[in-house]
Amino acid sequence: MTGWIQHSRLNNKFILLRDKTGHVQLIADRIDEDAFKPLKNANLESSICIEGTVIPRPEGQANSKIATGLIEVQVDSVKVVNPARSNLPFYIKPFNQANEALRLKYRYLDLRHIWMQNNLKMRSDITLKMRNFLADNGFTEVETPSLFRRTPGGAREFIVPTHVEGQFYSLVQSPQQFKQLLMAGGLGKYFQIARCYRDEGSRPDRQPEFTQVDIELAFSNCERIQTLIEELLRSCWPDSRAIPSEPFPRLTYQDCMEKYGTDKPDLRFDNQIQHVSPSIMALGFEKSQFAEEISKSSGRAIEKLVKNQFPGVIVSYFEKTIENTVICSASKFLPADARLSGDLGVITVSEDKNASLSALGKVRQIMSENYLVTKENDLKFCWVVDFPLFLPKENGQSGLQSAHHPFTRPHDEDIDLLETEPEKIRGQHYDLVLNGQEIGGGSIRIHESHVQKLVLEEILKEDTTELDHMIEALNSGCPPHGGIALGLDRLVAIICKARSIRDVIAFPKTTGGKDLMSGSPAEIKKEDKDFYHIK
Amino acid sequence: MTGWIQHSRLNNKFILLRDKTGHVQLIADRIDEDAFKPLKNANLESSICIEGTVIPRPEGQANSKIATGLIEVQVDSVKVVNPARSNLPFYIKPFNQANEALRLKYRYLDLRHIWMQNNLKMRSDITLKMRNFLADNGFTEVETPSLFRRTPGGAREFIVPTHVEGQFYSLVQSPQQFKQLLMAGGLGKYFQIARCYRDEGSRPDRQPEFTQVDIELAFSNCERIQTLIEELLRSCWPDSRAIPSEPFPRLTYQDCMEKYGTDKPDLRFDNQIQHVSPSIMALGFEKSQFAEEISKSSGRAIEKLVKNQFPGVIVSYFEKTIENTVICSASKFLPADARLSGDLGVITVSEDKNASLSALGKVRQIMSENYLVTKENDLKFCWVVDFPLFLPKENGQSGLQSAHHPFTRPHDEDIDLLETEPEKIRGQHYDLVLNGQEIGGGSIRIHESHVQKLVLEEILKEDTTELDHMIEALNSGCPPHGGIALGLDRLVAIICKARSIRDVIAFPKTTGGKDLMSGSPAEIKKEDKDFYHIK
Repeated sequence: MTGWIQHSRLNNKFILLRDKTGHVQLIADRIDEDAFKPLKNANLESSICIEGTVIPRPEGQANSKIATGLIEVQVDSVKVVNPARSNLPFYIKPFNQANEALRLKYRYLDLRHIWMQNNLKMRSDITLKMRNFLADNGFTEVETPSLFRRTPGGAREFIVPTHVEGQFYSLVQSPQQFKQLLMAGGLGKYFQIARCYRDEGSRPDRQPEFTQVDIELAFSNCERIQTLIEELLRSCWPDSRAIPSEPFPRLTYQDCMEKYGTDKPDLRFDNQIQHVSPSIMALGFEKSQFAEEISKSSGRAIEKLVKNQFPGVIVSYFEKTIENTVICSASKFLPADARLSGDLGVITVSEDKNASLSALGKVRQIMSENYLVTKENDLKFCWVVDFPLFLPKENGQSGLQSAHHPFTRPHDEDIDLLETEPEKIRGQHYDLVLNGQEIGGGSIRIHESHVQKLVLEEILKEDTTELDHMIEALNSGCPPHGGIALGLDRLVAIICKARSIRDVIAFPKTTGGKDLMSGSPAEIKKEDKDFYHIK
Repeated sequence: MTGWIQHSRLNNKFILLRDKTGHVQLIADRIDEDAFKPLKNANLESSICIEGTVIPRPEGQANSKIATGLIEVQVDSVKVVNPARSNLPFYIKPFNQANEALRLKYRYLDLRHIWMQNNLKMRSDITLKMRNFLADNGFTEVETPSLFRRTPGGAREFIVPTHVEGQFYSLVQSPQQFKQLLMAGGLGKYFQIARCYRDEGSRPDRQPEFTQVDIELAFSNCERIQTLIEELLRSCWPDSRAIPSEPFPRLTYQDCMEKYGTDKPDLRFDNQIQHVSPSIMALGFEKSQFAEEISKSSGRAIEKLVKNQFPGVIVSYFEKTIENTVICSASKFLPADARLSGDLGVITVSEDKNASLSALGKVRQIMSENYLVTKENDLKFCWVVDFPLFLPKENGQSGLQSAHHPFTRPHDEDIDLLETEPEKIRGQHYDLVLNGQEIGGGSIRIHESHVQKLVLEEILKEDTTELDHMIEALNSGCPPHGGIALGLDRLVAIICKARSIRDVIAFPKTTGGKDLMSGSPAEIKKEDKDFYHIK
C-alpha cells in the first residue's frame, strides 16, 4: 500500500495514510524501533510504502461515516520512498485551504486534495464518455492544427513568430474554419475535444487556453443538432436522471430578452420581467424564494449596483405591505392601478427599453447568485434561438458586425433580406444555456460561396483575401453543414460543483495569464529573440 | 442518399456517386427532362442528394469485386445541394494523384479521397481504443497546458509573446514536466493524447506540431511499463494478431550498435554486422532476400552514398563468386581466411569502430528501404534499453549532455558513478522500435531532489532556477515514477501503410512549416505587432 503521511501521532505509533481515494489508519506498534525509525523521522507528506494486515478497529473507535472507518492496518513493514521536506507551504486538509495564489504556485501539492483528484477524474470520465457516444454515432475525431493564421474579426489571437522575419502563425481561437473545411472534405461527422486560445487579458474565470467539445456535421439542421447534444449530455452526465428526458425548451432571443433581460436566462426561477407600461418594467420575487429574509438594505444595495451600470435607467427597490400596497421610492412613476407580482423586487423606469430589460436581467442574476434558494441538483437547460445575425458595430462605428461569426447562415425565411435589410435577419444560431450560464453555441453555416462572399464583402466589409480558401472550399461542392462547440471547462465545473473553472483544470493560469508554479510567461534568451526577430 | 458526382455520362443518364465509404452507380433514365436538368448542368464534385430504388445491375454488368458492384440505384428525384465550380485543380481519382503541394493547397478536395477518409477514421479509432484501454487500466486523462515556459536543453521551442514587453510563453515540446508534477500531485496513473510543438525547421517527415500518446505512472518500473505498452498496442491495433503475443525482445543499446549499427534496428532482417577484425567489419545479404537481382551498380551506388557520410571509413561493396571467393575492391584489407556470410554486401575498414558500425547501420537501412523483400504485415517490435545516460556534448564542446533528458534516472547499479564517472552510467531509458523506426521512448525518472540537483548542476551545468519548481516538487514527497511517450503520427502512418505522416494528419504543414491552404504563417497587422512589442 502506498500513499502520503497525512497525520501522525508518534507516541502511540499511529499514522494516517492518504492516497488519491481517501485515508486509512495505520498502527505500527508491532514493528521494532529500528524499522519504525525512518517513519519517525519522516515529515508529513512523505511518500511511503507499507505492508500490513487489515484488522477491525478496536471497539468504540469505529466510524461508519467514512469508507475505511471500520478498519485499520496493522503495519508489518514500512519504507519511506521519498521524504518530504519540513515546512511545506501548506498541508492537505479538508478545511482551511490555502489561498488560491499559494495553491497555484504549489499546484502539485494542491492536486493531492481529494476533491481535486475527483475533479480531474470526473473530467477524464466525462470526455471519454462523450468520445464513445460520438464514435458510436458515427463521428470521427480529427485533430486540427493550432498553428494557423489570423482570422478576421473575433477575439484577439496569440501570435507565434517564425524564423522568417515578418511571418507569424496565430494560435487558433477555435477550429471553426478547419471543421467547415472537413465538411467540404467529405468527412460527414466530425468532432474534436480541442484546445483553443484567446488572448483576452484579465477576464475572470477565463483562461488563455481552454478546451471545447467541437462538433460539425453535414446535411443536418438546428433541431437535429440540438437533439444530438441533449443525448450527448445525457450520455456523459454522472447522474443522467438529473437531466430532463424531454427536449430542452427552445426560447427565442427576443422572448429571452423580454422575459429575462438576458440571452442566458437562469430558468431555475420563474420570475419574469413585468411590462407595466412602455417605459416601466418590474421584476418581483416571492418571500418564499429566499433562503433567509432579505433586508431593505440588501435591496438598496442591489438598486445601487444596477443603477451604476445602467446610468440612464431609474432603478428602484419595491416591497409590498401586508395590505398589498407597493412601497417604492419611485412610486410616483407607477400607474395607480399597477399590479406588480411578487412580494418585493425592483422597478425600472426608462425610455430605453433595452436598457431597462438589461438592468432587470442583471437584477435577476444578482438575486439568483446571492439570495435565492436553489435545489442542489436542479439543472435547467434551454436553447436560445433566432439571434439576430448582425449587430451594429461597437464603439459607435457605423455598419454591422456578426453577432457570432461570419459563417452563420441566415434563417431560410430571412435570406432575401441580405441585400436589403440585413439588420433584420435572424441567424440559424443556437446557444445552450444551463442555469444562467452559456455552455455552448453553434449554428448552421453558410454553404454557398456567393452568400458567404456577400456577407463578408458587402455587409461586414472584410478583406476576403484572408478567407479565400474558405470561399473556394464552399465553391467546390461543399455539402450543407452545421455544428456546435461546448465549453468543456465550464461544463465540467458545473458538473463538479466547482467554484471556478480553475478547479477543474490541472494547471490553470491566473486571471492575469500567469503560471505561478513555473513563473511563465518569462523572459527568453537573447539568441531566441534574435532567431525570432524580436527586438 | 448524399454524395458527390464522381463521374457522369449524360447521354445515357448515368452518374457515379461517391461518398466517404465508396461509389454507387445511379441511373436517372426514369426522371423527366426538367428534373434531370440541374444534374445535367452540375459539374463533377457537386454535392447532390438523391432518392431512388436499389435494383440489381443488368445482366452482364455485375462486378463482384467491389462492394456495390451488384447493384445500381434507379433515381426517383435528385437535388444539387451545392454545385462545384468547373475546372477544380484536381479531381478525386484512385490513380494519377496530384502532386503533394497541390493536394495540400486544396486539402479539402484531397480529403475526399477514400484512402484519406480511411486514414483519418483509422486514427480516430486507434486513439479511442487507446483511451478506453488506458481508462480500463485505471489511468486518468489530464489536459496539461501548451502555453508554458522555456525548458533548458532539448529542441527549439516556439515562443508566444504576451502584451507585457519581454515576457513570453513557450509552446511545450512535450508534457514531460507536467506529467512528473502530476505524479508529485498524487495522480498515480496519467495519460494524455497531447499536442506538442518543436521548431525544428525543415526536417523531412516532421511537423511543427505533432501528437504524442503520453503516459506516466507512480510506483512502476521499466518492465511493467514496457508490458503495459505492449498490451496497449495489442488493444488498439486493427489486426491484433499481427502483433506477437509474447513480450517484445529487449536489446541493449550496446548490442544494437554492435549487431545493427543503430539504436533503431530493423529486425525484419537477421543480417547482423560481422566483426572480421578490430578494424574490419562486414554486412552481408543472401541473394534470396532481394525482390529482384541487385546489380553491381546499385552496390556501387550504396557504397558511394555511405562513403560520403562517413569520410573516415573505407566502404567497399563485395560479392561472392560461385566458388565462394570474395570479390571486393578493398579485398587487400581482408584477411586470407576471412569468411564473410552472405552472397553480397559491404565491408568497412576503419580504426574508428563507431564510425564503421554507423556506416554499416546506414547500409542496412538503405537496403531495407530500397531492395529487400518485406512481408506486408511483418511487424518487428523491440525495446532498446540501457542507453548511456550522458553523451559528450556536440560541436566539440567539453562536458556532458543528457542522452535523452535530464530527468532520466540512472540504473540502480550505476547510481554511485554519478559523482565519479558519469559518462559510464546507463540510464533507465527504453525506446520502442518498430521495423527500424522509433515509435516511442520513455524512462524511469529521478525522484530524489538531491539527485536531480546534482545531475542538473554538477553534470549538465544547467541553471536550475528555470527548474526550481521541479526540484521543489520532488522534495515534497513525490513518489517514484516513470513513463513513456509514443509518437502517434508515426504509429498511425505505419498502421495505415501511409507513405508519410502527412497522409494521416488532416491539415499538415509542408516540410518548411507552411500551411499551403490558408497561407500560414503570414504577415500580421501593425496593431498586433505593436500590442506584442514586435518591431
